Amino acid sequence: MAETNRKWVLRSRPEGMPGPENFELREDAVPQIADGQFLVRTLYLSCDPAQRAWMSRDTYVPMIPIGDVMHSGATGRVAQSKHSGFREGDLVSGMFGWQDYAVSDGRGLMPVTKLPPGVPIASAMSALGVTGLTAYFGMLDVGKPKPGDGVLVSGAAGATGSIAAQIAKIHGARVVGIAGGADKCAWLTGELGLDAAIDYRSERVARRIHELFPKGVDVYFDNVGGEILDAALGALAVGGRIVLCGAISSYNATELPPGPRNYTNLIVRRGRMEGFLVTDYAARFGEAVGDLAGWAAAGKLRDRIDVVDGLENAPDALRRLFTGENVGKQLVRVAEPPEGR
Amino acid sequence: MAETNRKWVLRSRPEGMPGPENFELREDAVPQIADGQFLVRTLYLSCDPAQRAWMSRDTYVPMIPIGDVMHSGATGRVAQSKHSGFREGDLVSGMFGWQDYAVSDGRGLMPVTKLPPGVPIASAMSALGVTGLTAYFGMLDVGKPKPGDGVLVSGAAGATGSIAAQIAKIHGARVVGIAGGADKCAWLTGELGLDAAIDYRSERVARRIHELFPKGVDVYFDNVGGEILDAALGALAVGGRIVLCGAISSYNATELPPGPRNYTNLIVRRGRMEGFLVTDYAARFGEAVGDLAGWAAAGKLRDRIDVVDGLENAPDALRRLFTGENVGKQLVRVAEPPEGR
Repeated sequence: MAETNRKWVLRSRPEGMPGPENFELREDAVPQIADGQFLVRTLYLSCDPAQRAWMSRDTYVPMIPIGDVMHSGATGRVAQSKHSGFREGDLVSGMFGWQDYAVSDGRGLMPVTKLPPGVPIASAMSALGVTGLTAYFGMLDVGKPKPGDGVLVSGAAGATGSIAAQIAKIHGARVVGIAGGADKCAWLTGELGLDAAIDYRSERVARRIHELFPKGVDVYFDNVGGEILDAALGALAVGGRIVLCGAISSYNATELPPGPRNYTNLIVRRGRMEGFLVTDYAARFGEAVGDLAGWAAAGKLRDRIDVVDGLENAPDALRRLFTGENVGKQLVRVAEPPEGR
Repeated sequence: MAETNRKWVLRSRPEGMPGPENFELREDAVPQIADGQFLVRTLYLSCDPAQRAWMSRDTYVPMIPIGDVMHSGATGRVAQSKHSGFREGDLVSGMFGWQDYAVSDGRGLMPVTKLPPGVPIASAMSALGVTGLTAYFGMLDVGKPKPGDGVLVSGAAGATGSIAAQIAKIHGARVVGIAGGADKCAWLTGELGLDAAIDYRSERVARRIHELFPKGVDVYFDNVGGEILDAALGALAVGGRIVLCGAISSYNATELPPGPRNYTNLIVRRGRMEGFLVTDYAARFGEAVGDLAGWAAAGKLRDRIDVVDGLENAPDALRRLFTGENVGKQLVRVAEPPEGR
């Protein structure tokens, strides 16, 4: 066991893109645990666009205090335990933050140990974790695609988008993904089997949406906001549903950008735009993970992981989400996972 | 019977507020009817914000062709009939336009004659007509207020807003109306019995909404769009519903104004913003008119009518909607209705 605990603390609130100046890497003693607690050795950190929001404003959680360890979903291994429900070696997932070691009392954890045997831990942070659950409930409970529906997904080469798009395919929809760059688009129509892809870096998105959806978009799963949301609103089918999952195009804006001009099309097309948070569906996580694991085992759901090695590179890994460098789920590997996981 | 048919035709598409230059009053012979048709003597014209949209763009209906009679909902009396289903003297409601006489084959009519005895025709164009039905289905089917919910209505002294606000009260909600001017606000909290009113001309709307809804807005019935929609989004309760009925603040804009910046609050608050068109609920109109007439008879639903006399004043009556001069439903009386109606 390491003698020290490295941790990234929030030094300042970013304006625009978060950079190294907003974080400070500190080294402390490994924390001591009290009765009812256990010590977690961090293995993987999850990189999520929402972390950018947590850095500078109150959302569904209060913003991160300056000087706090950077908040982050993570998976780790119990290194020491004085908690009756957790033993050394257990795998646990929770908000352990950007650090080598975290102390937990067991509240608010995700049950990583219930993963089907042989599934890598990285999957528990992607298709079979919060990312997959977000895609699952957003697409199925909010978007409700029917067989034959035209489904559009932005950020489709990203973690949540790639899973959401595949879930819509599994349910018989015709699915078009939007991503940045020819390589990502080729991955969407190739390995993921989507019906078409739009490269927002080289194509006129609004025109392409109209071409690809002559009858309108029945479900739009939005990870990006901005002009692409406006284009989807402009092409909405009668009774269309817009699933608001994220708005990454605005997360680094220094002031709130204009909203979608075409929102009045929701009246003309009798459409709906709806947000959701995956935590509201906690009672159904078991059912959903079962479905996701089944689809993965049957080869219908591909889970792509993009790993950056080393806690010291966590700020850079987070930045990759906003430059569009990642494909699939962006993780930081902090320590080697146990053999076979 | 008059010898001529006066009619307002659309001369040009307005930029900004529609004015007299956009219309031309012509005088033609009274039209002849063929077998299967009947002639309608127009009694009342309905003034609706949507008419402004029909003048300059395709919406859920194609835009009005230049040279056509200005489209408008209207109620009239059958003056001649060669249609087996309609007799001279029948009262009918439909899209008869801004003219003294219209020819109909009976399709697309509303059944005015089924009004409860003694109900004035004007009510068939307001609380017991399309206006009341719009408020009814928008508030109840889209907004779904529960007893104790906090409900906010904009354009609350207008035709649809005033009915929608009262329907929410009838269903046990706490209701706040937004209107322009002290007189309208006094009417809302006095005669209509709303819990509070906000005067958008003299008060800071966003701050007042926060003060009046410390737990957030459960249902916002939106007739106006613009900054007020943004303010409501900013104060949305968890699980809040925004009913998109209209966006009168933007109808005269020469270019599409920015959309609501705060739409991402739909994610944070797991909210929904949804549009609707009353025509989609045609199968349930009977049930709804029954409810509305019952509430009116019980004194729970007040129907205020604002009448301008004379077909020649129709453009001015339409303009009143956009200057906020009307209180309640704006109508144009083209001819005297039959005695007692």
